Amino acid sequence: MKRNIYLEDIPLHEAQARLTEALKKYNKDQPVSSELINLRYAVGRITAEAHWAKRSSPHYHAAAMDGYAVQAQDTLYATETQPVTLQNAYPVNTGDPLPDNTNAVIMIENLQLTEEGIVITDPVAPWQHVRMMGEDMIATELVLPAGHKLRPVDLGALAGCGYHQVSVYRKPRVIIIPTGSELVPANIEPKPGQITEYNSLVLAAQVEESGGEATILPITPDDPEKLRQVLFDALDQTPDLILILSGSSAGSRDYTAGIIQENGELLVHGVAVRPGHPVIIGMSRTIPVIGVPGYPVSAALTGEIIIQPLITQWLGMNAGIHTRLTAKATMTRKLLSPIGDDDFVRVTLAKVGEHLLAAPLNRGAGVITSLVRADALAHIPRFSEGVNAGDEVDVILYRPLQEITQSVFIMGSHDPMLDLLGQFINQQGFRLTSANVGSLGGIVAIRRREAHLAGMHLLDEETGEYNLPYLKKQLNHIPLKVVTFSHREQGFIVARGNPKNITNINDLTRVRYVNRQRGAGTRLLLDYELKRHGIDPLSIQGYEQEEYTHLAVAAAIATGIADCGLGVRSAAIALNLDFVPVGWERYDFVIPEEHITHPGIQILLDILNSETFKAALSMQPGYDTHQTGQIIEVV
Amino acid sequence: MKRNIYLEDIPLHEAQARLTEALKKYNKDQPVSSELINLRYAVGRITAEAHWAKRSSPHYHAAAMDGYAVQAQDTLYATETQPVTLQNAYPVNTGDPLPDNTNAVIMIENLQLTEEGIVITDPVAPWQHVRMMGEDMIATELVLPAGHKLRPVDLGALAGCGYHQVSVYRKPRVIIIPTGSELVPANIEPKPGQITEYNSLVLAAQVEESGGEATILPITPDDPEKLRQVLFDALDQTPDLILILSGSSAGSRDYTAGIIQENGELLVHGVAVRPGHPVIIGMSRTIPVIGVPGYPVSAALTGEIIIQPLITQWLGMNAGIHTRLTAKATMTRKLLSPIGDDDFVRVTLAKVGEHLLAAPLNRGAGVITSLVRADALAHIPRFSEGVNAGDEVDVILYRPLQEITQSVFIMGSHDPMLDLLGQFINQQGFRLTSANVGSLGGIVAIRRREAHLAGMHLLDEETGEYNLPYLKKQLNHIPLKVVTFSHREQGFIVARGNPKNITNINDLTRVRYVNRQRGAGTRLLLDYELKRHGIDPLSIQGYEQEEYTHLAVAAAIATGIADCGLGVRSAAIALNLDFVPVGWERYDFVIPEEHITHPGIQILLDILNSETFKAALSMQPGYDTHQTGQIIEVV
Repeated sequence: MKRNIYLEDIPLHEAQARLTEALKKYNKDQPVSSELINLRYAVGRITAEAHWAKRSSPHYHAAAMDGYAVQAQDTLYATETQPVTLQNAYPVNTGDPLPDNTNAVIMIENLQLTEEGIVITDPVAPWQHVRMMGEDMIATELVLPAGHKLRPVDLGALAGCGYHQVSVYRKPRVIIIPTGSELVPANIEPKPGQITEYNSLVLAAQVEESGGEATILPITPDDPEKLRQVLFDALDQTPDLILILSGSSAGSRDYTAGIIQENGELLVHGVAVRPGHPVIIGMSRTIPVIGVPGYPVSAALTGEIIIQPLITQWLGMNAGIHTRLTAKATMTRKLLSPIGDDDFVRVTLAKVGEHLLAAPLNRGAGVITSLVRADALAHIPRFSEGVNAGDEVDVILYRPLQEITQSVFIMGSHDPMLDLLGQFINQQGFRLTSANVGSLGGIVAIRRREAHLAGMHLLDEETGEYNLPYLKKQLNHIPLKVVTFSHREQGFIVARGNPKNITNINDLTRVRYVNRQRGAGTRLLLDYELKRHGIDPLSIQGYEQEEYTHLAVAAAIATGIADCGLGVRSAAIALNLDFVPVGWERYDFVIPEEHITHPGIQILLDILNSETFKAALSMQPGYDTHQTGQIIEVV
Repeated sequence: MKRNIYLEDIPLHEAQARLTEALKKYNKDQPVSSELINLRYAVGRITAEAHWAKRSSPHYHAAAMDGYAVQAQDTLYATETQPVTLQNAYPVNTGDPLPDNTNAVIMIENLQLTEEGIVITDPVAPWQHVRMMGEDMIATELVLPAGHKLRPVDLGALAGCGYHQVSVYRKPRVIIIPTGSELVPANIEPKPGQITEYNSLVLAAQVEESGGEATILPITPDDPEKLRQVLFDALDQTPDLILILSGSSAGSRDYTAGIIQENGELLVHGVAVRPGHPVIIGMSRTIPVIGVPGYPVSAALTGEIIIQPLITQWLGMNAGIHTRLTAKATMTRKLLSPIGDDDFVRVTLAKVGEHLLAAPLNRGAGVITSLVRADALAHIPRFSEGVNAGDEVDVILYRPLQEITQSVFIMGSHDPMLDLLGQFINQQGFRLTSANVGSLGGIVAIRRREAHLAGMHLLDEETGEYNLPYLKKQLNHIPLKVVTFSHREQGFIVARGNPKNITNINDLTRVRYVNRQRGAGTRLLLDYELKRHGIDPLSIQGYEQEEYTHLAVAAAIATGIADCGLGVRSAAIALNLDFVPVGWERYDFVIPEEHITHPGIQILLDILNSETFKAALSMQPGYDTHQTGQIIEVV
């Protein structure tokens, strides 16, 4: 296929404009057709027209109490001393229509029944205890506008004014075609080189969340002829939209574009957004077809930025009200951004003191957990080279700000059991969110007032003491509390069966080692142990090969690149490796005094000191809770 | 049935405590059981347990680019002048597993293929263009906590780490029994005395919105024996909850309580909330049964305050995070509140300048449109006698505050065609919200800075001029613009066929008249016309009978209480009455200068001046748009 350079990597707004224009050409920029559905199944659907009251509600003057219906004028002169006996008074129950020539109801307890009639001692005002016709809705009055998403109470109002069905937009129909020979469905265990296909699940759910109806076809292998056939069959079903989900190969994208073009027009071949570049947009016959990139974050963001707004438009919802909520937040660190792209960065938000902070999550297009963990999406617009730490950015919220204020934000060293702690905090109505920047990074965060607390395990070479010497040196101007999270076991992660027979630190000189980066707590531990045993670091092969996480170390061993590395036991267990214990270290939480009264911190401290949490944590291999929850004095 | 006084009208918190205690006794205060469901249908469901990664993702080191896989160490000394030829280099496509003993990928464009091998001129860093095993998720890592509402991206994360099904709480099952001999279903046209039953639709939708599953049974007439049988059949199906929806009669409530008690225990017979008093709570066999009051607002609020939280609890969602959003707002007017009740008042919210204002809507328990129109629920707690204008109140939000700021708030005289204007404003992404306080009330609102604009039609008796004399007298210190909405036709609303042959104002002295209240624009018009024709108001029978809306006037005529009243043509049309024109009046919008630049006001002004809007308005009987949108000078 001939490459159309002018279609490639165009800016987002231009890609959207081309799609809009093409839809207009085929008269598909308007809402889809409507259908009448029963009120029982109408919640969440969008009204296709304004609904005006067909009849008033109540549709007659109704008694609002059990009692007697009277003409108010007849009661005008009743007093305690000169009671009035009413001839025209009629018994009514709540809801009964008022008899002719009555306009008020007297409650049973305010009258006397006598043989001569009803005797009263007080006048009543017109319309007392009467629900007047139209009190709720007046025939011809607007009850619901068009483009309104139906809620439970709306069904009541519609039924009350004479509807039993409601006119809503039909659900836009979307056919989803996953492609890629390397893909396997979620119910099949993938082999190396095979990838679980789940973009179709995410996009189908996005379509349905926006009010559409999705059909997922089986995975089509990388074969132009097969894809052509599948696309044609899909076009024959005349859906509103077809999504072709790319596999990972560049080649498949090229023939996807060609096949779309064969029966129509290619509009866009690559959009300058990050992540998400290889988005394809075209019209086949008269149906829009979108080629969705294969990387999961790119696929999900294509869904959010291009596909969901399209469905919203087809459902006649005005863009202004139904767009996502936004806020302004302060970036916690510098981010470089490609100058030509609209860059969407997933961030965790934290309200620390008065500041709303945005901490960027992993930016990889393959890291779907960055979307799962995100509180918001920071938009770094085209023509920006990035943002500096402290800059204000616009964020699109994934959760209301009120939930963010119910979060406790921890920075510093990561420990897998923070997740366990998070579970306990969750049950108390708060959330624990984290950014993993290493122990020393945690100290920096506290200094900058960017976290409610920091996690660290910093061994002081001089004293063999944990954390306190660093805090005295680097945070002595900030009043803070130090609380132990846990002691954890560090050791040598080795291949299954320990084939190199590594038993102590002296063995490191005869194997291929994989190290942690400078400043990591685990690196400090290694250097301390080497010094103690009088081993020259340069005598260790691989000492200069630095990795940034416990798992990267474990992965190097699992894949045979190295024989040994220092790390926590849980990393070895995660990758099914063996573990040679070296010793125990103390992992502490450092909490500035100013945050101690934060309700989430109070909950966290209570949990650390609860027996149920300690029991749960000590059941994990490599954790010792004898000091968990204890406050350590910073002298 | 013997009345249990101590169960009657207890405070809300105590009613909830009794229910909680009873549920605990029967071990029903815990989440319901779980079920495994396919990811495809899991969005919106709640995880019943924490989900930890079953395998890492990627589950192998994968090439992130098309190119050649190499060992980074082999490239260390490559330079422009001293290229390196690699023996161990293997072609890989994106997604391929890295061959053994490689740890980086070089892109095709950065190497030369020669007969001797791959030639490079730059070193590469370890793991360049490689997606490391576990980059996204590490086996054993927490992916989703328990009690988490699944979103589209969550499905991707679960599938990516080895799940194709997810453990979620089953949907709590609720059986709904509407009762009342006066009730008819929504698809049947009700006769006077009959009421459309729609509380079951609202409550079923609330149950399903919260994640439950509702079954609505046919309407049971007011007959204890029949209700007993229906309840027993429902109990036999062992749902999680049964709702008995009361009809309007007091009697039915009493035997509902008795029947619940026959097989269990009555816990609560009346809750001190307003609206909603006659809530019944009991346990039959071991199943909670709630008797829901018949008035629609009472029923819907019982759903929100008592039933939805129960379902949320059964779905294991922690209360803190999933509760509704709240805010603080300033009341626009004084409200009296019964001292013993928790009072829930529906309010419209408006952001006028810097202030978030709460304007109370109709407080009637029968007015479901007050819930449809509400932006929030103001909670006036027990032991308060009410609030004064200007007091701050806590409100539970029905829409995010961001939507509120996209609202234009109008106070003053009501015109039915404000709804039409609202429709047009909606299409531009804004909302028009209103509070109807009469023309003079609109002037007060502008003076107090409580509205973006006011609607009015005030005839000055002296000059025969509309609105401007009033503004000069009463708002001369506030810079403002006056823009005409429309001329409207006022006239005599008379019975169908005009049986009393009313043709002009002189006829009023020989019929029964129904008047508007002092200060209403329409009342001023009548008084002006009477004066002009030299008619003594006291010569008109019913002159002192005041009604507060156009429709109340029309209703008095429709029900034969009066023969004639002055009002707009649309009120006559609404109730199918006849109309004798008297004249045209000008209805203006008054907009303080400080709000002219508000984007919503700009949109409103554009719409008033658009031909499509004028065409739509002039098609309505009784509206003349020759001056619509014109700005009138206030000299």
